[in-house]
Amino acid sequence: MKLQPCACGGIDVHAHVVPERLPDYLGAHMPALWPSSVEAPAQGGLCHRHVMIAGRQYRTISEKCWSTPRRLADLPGMGLKHQVISPMPELLSYWLAPADAQQLLRYLNEQTAAMVADSEGALLGLAAVPLQDIDLAIAELRHAVQALGLVGVELGSNVNGVPIGDPRFLPFFQACEALDVPVFVHALKPTGMDRLVGPAPLQQVLAYPSDVGLAAASVITANLLLACPRLRIGFSHGGGTLAMLLPRLQQGWQVFPALREQLQASPVEQARRLFFDTLVFDEATLRHLVERFGASQLMLGSDYPFAFHERAPAERVAAAGFDAATVSALLHGNAERFLGLPHTETQR
Amino acid sequence: MKLQPCACGGIDVHAHVVPERLPDYLGAHMPALWPSSVEAPAQGGLCHRHVMIAGRQYRTISEKCWSTPRRLADLPGMGLKHQVISPMPELLSYWLAPADAQQLLRYLNEQTAAMVADSEGALLGLAAVPLQDIDLAIAELRHAVQALGLVGVELGSNVNGVPIGDPRFLPFFQACEALDVPVFVHALKPTGMDRLVGPAPLQQVLAYPSDVGLAAASVITANLLLACPRLRIGFSHGGGTLAMLLPRLQQGWQVFPALREQLQASPVEQARRLFFDTLVFDEATLRHLVERFGASQLMLGSDYPFAFHERAPAERVAAAGFDAATVSALLHGNAERFLGLPHTETQR
Repeated sequence: MKLQPCACGGIDVHAHVVPERLPDYLGAHMPALWPSSVEAPAQGGLCHRHVMIAGRQYRTISEKCWSTPRRLADLPGMGLKHQVISPMPELLSYWLAPADAQQLLRYLNEQTAAMVADSEGALLGLAAVPLQDIDLAIAELRHAVQALGLVGVELGSNVNGVPIGDPRFLPFFQACEALDVPVFVHALKPTGMDRLVGPAPLQQVLAYPSDVGLAAASVITANLLLACPRLRIGFSHGGGTLAMLLPRLQQGWQVFPALREQLQASPVEQARRLFFDTLVFDEATLRHLVERFGASQLMLGSDYPFAFHERAPAERVAAAGFDAATVSALLHGNAERFLGLPHTETQR
Repeated sequence: MKLQPCACGGIDVHAHVVPERLPDYLGAHMPALWPSSVEAPAQGGLCHRHVMIAGRQYRTISEKCWSTPRRLADLPGMGLKHQVISPMPELLSYWLAPADAQQLLRYLNEQTAAMVADSEGALLGLAAVPLQDIDLAIAELRHAVQALGLVGVELGSNVNGVPIGDPRFLPFFQACEALDVPVFVHALKPTGMDRLVGPAPLQQVLAYPSDVGLAAASVITANLLLACPRLRIGFSHGGGTLAMLLPRLQQGWQVFPALREQLQASPVEQARRLFFDTLVFDEATLRHLVERFGASQLMLGSDYPFAFHERAPAERVAAAGFDAATVSALLHGNAERFLGLPHTETQR
């Protein structure tokens, strides 16, 4: 089937799920950061729940987080044929003891797989893994892919403050490469919180893109794609601030002997092998990202169904003034390559 | 005189000085972070000195940092008619006791004024002030402007970790407004250092733009230009990451009630009243900054004479494909407005 470059048939690689119920802790002493959820007042005809962490309401979520039929009903209006679902990042639980995290993440992975199974092919799922323990993370990834049918993995931009490019995570990325599954890196517990002046949402608004930008830069400065040449790795929020960091990194690599020695290939060249979502809320920025990273590296991202999500990710791409081949690549072609799916069209 | 849009006649607002000698500490117990400088081996026919902080070599600098004739000889080749000089930011000394900092900064301001006086009108100087003590900072600014003839002030992007938009600094900005002098904000002691994977220059390369981007965002989220409508404030390194943060901040302002309440004007509208230098090492990024912030808000910046500086700031602008009016504005017209100088041409 050859798709027209319309704002339809899209694949959204950045959308989240939260199960209706979170599991009880099975051990003797529940960790303080073990999450739970409680019923909240309905709003707009939708059931809601509060996700509770450390005794406080972390976020109030609607049934769109867990109801597959609700979600499927929203996809056509967003121009989507497929959506890749991953846990709300705050559930990734790198801060729990590894065995505790693994228990929680196994439950999340099973719930994600159940939503995928209910979706008649519309949804694909990303696994969550306890990356604070590399071996356990690899084991959970294998289970999620081989037993549960998930198609890739969601990682935080840092693991307890250590950026994802740090060499300690290399064995995990090698396992992803061996399993031939993509990695989607999402901002989480960001740096720079002490540089914000204003209310709590600035964490998501300003610190998230800063953290994911530095995470993407860390993958470049650590030469990850030279160590794992077949790895497919994508970054949330359009790569955050990376587009502004990259020319300076390129210049620094040319000027500083220590950087010249560290980076085994040009930063620009390495960056153009990374994937990024389109979640930037602005057409001019989309055009700049395409110029910066290449038309082959951007994929739809919506952050559905949270309040701060892109309502019309496919329309945003269609409105940016790209040629038909680029629109098609951004809507689904690049995501198909990232996810390892068969291509639905010939243009590229 | 009407200038042609050639890569000449430029005004560089981002260039640094370090005096050949740093002053002895006058008190009884020298603070550990009091800087000094010692002779270093000559290189390339230029005298060099090591700047020492806490007993370690912070940076090795050449006589271009302190020799006015050397500097003036370099300006034509960079397409510059004027350069605005400011202290190497690591000398801003916010981390010293206020009286100690004031002693050091007074010396720096006098040295800057002496270079300006030796330059036959080619150089203009920015003051350094002990912003860890607002009253002392205002007093030093008054002295630097009224007695020493400096034309503005250089601030760090944060003062001991507090971003420059924090309301505690408002009286200082009101003083700048009352004195009708511009503020140039430079990255300093950046956040995100724990997110870097690689050698020390990544601080300048990646963390500096991240910090100055968050500093510029803090000025927006704090509504600084609404409180000080006549303040002229510019940011180093093209505003760092702000260009990538801004669309998300705009969307967040539309979505989150708490942000809607906090920000008294649209983030995009506020951002387009800030000034930025052109120090981004890339023509595509320059074009994006002009689209993002407006052709009226960018001014040449070089970071001369450090190793990681832009050799041809005016040529970079001339090569970016702007129309003649934009080239003229970026080369000097915007800097003239920022600095409060008479305009040298009619195009705008």
